[in-house]
Amino acid sequence: MHDRDRERTRRRLLDAAFVEFAAHGIAGARMERIARIARCSAGLAYNYYGGKDELFDAVQSDVAGATALEFDVLDLPGYAGRLYDLQHQHPELARLATWQRLERRSPVSRTADVEAIRSAQESGLVSSRFPAEQVLQLVLAVASMWAAAPSSSDHGVRRRTVEDAVRRLVEP
Amino acid sequence: MHDRDRERTRRRLLDAAFVEFAAHGIAGARMERIARIARCSAGLAYNYYGGKDELFDAVQSDVAGATALEFDVLDLPGYAGRLYDLQHQHPELARLATWQRLERRSPVSRTADVEAIRSAQESGLVSSRFPAEQVLQLVLAVASMWAAAPSSSDHGVRRRTVEDAVRRLVEP
Repeated sequence: MHDRDRERTRRRLLDAAFVEFAAHGIAGARMERIARIARCSAGLAYNYYGGKDELFDAVQSDVAGATALEFDVLDLPGYAGRLYDLQHQHPELARLATWQRLERRSPVSRTADVEAIRSAQESGLVSSRFPAEQVLQLVLAVASMWAAAPSSSDHGVRRRTVEDAVRRLVEP
Repeated sequence: MHDRDRERTRRRLLDAAFVEFAAHGIAGARMERIARIARCSAGLAYNYYGGKDELFDAVQSDVAGATALEFDVLDLPGYAGRLYDLQHQHPELARLATWQRLERRSPVSRTADVEAIRSAQESGLVSSRFPAEQVLQLVLAVASMWAAAPSSSDHGVRRRTVEDAVRRLVEP
């Protein structure tokens, strides 16, 4: 029973911290506010996670697990479209990733995906117009091109642009 | 003489604030640190600019004036390449723009540029594959695709990718 309470408090802290970090970033987030929303004391929050930076890390791995999107080298336009959808449905995810980039300066390295692209290029399934790591970055940039903008009624047009643009860039 | 001192202090404050905001954003920036680097008191900084938010605005318009890059609808690949160069030479500019997006949530509207693209599409100079506002967003997304990444020896490859990708997306 005690363990279950602990588990629930941790869950509430992660959920509250996700909202707080997405809104304010690491420097702007307040542990007191997170604790208040999670209905526990700031002391307990520090006790469970050590500090704001550690809590940010915990939120990031929690979110990464919950929203994993499988990379699909054989359908890069479709992958870009799904990544666009994910960011459209959860704008806080894109904000969190951007805060991470700005405040941590440690881009996630995706060596396996670059390798998959390289193989697909060798087999002629993806155009060799651009080097493999440039292809991955193009796909991510186009998929995220609207991530910072306010949502609009243009959703369908935006999604079609993402898929069509990636298709035009990667088709052999 | 008094006016010139005032002007110099303002200049030092803007320069110090630019570095501070690019590194830490609005929430993370410290007026005390800015004032110390500008060799004046925090009180004087508040006196000149009113507060951190107003100082951020002042830095933004200062930077916008100094780094204006003319939009060129007749050479969108070249424009994208020059925008890439600007961000490559001044990575703090891209950081500042990203902080602005995250902390202010007010994207800059570029109606005139969208109109220029629409006219170019009507004259057949730019492909009508994508609606005009999607074209502008694609150009900006591709030009900025490496803005968040650490600089690398790949500079030439990155620049070529930006130009070639935009060309492929917009050529009629």
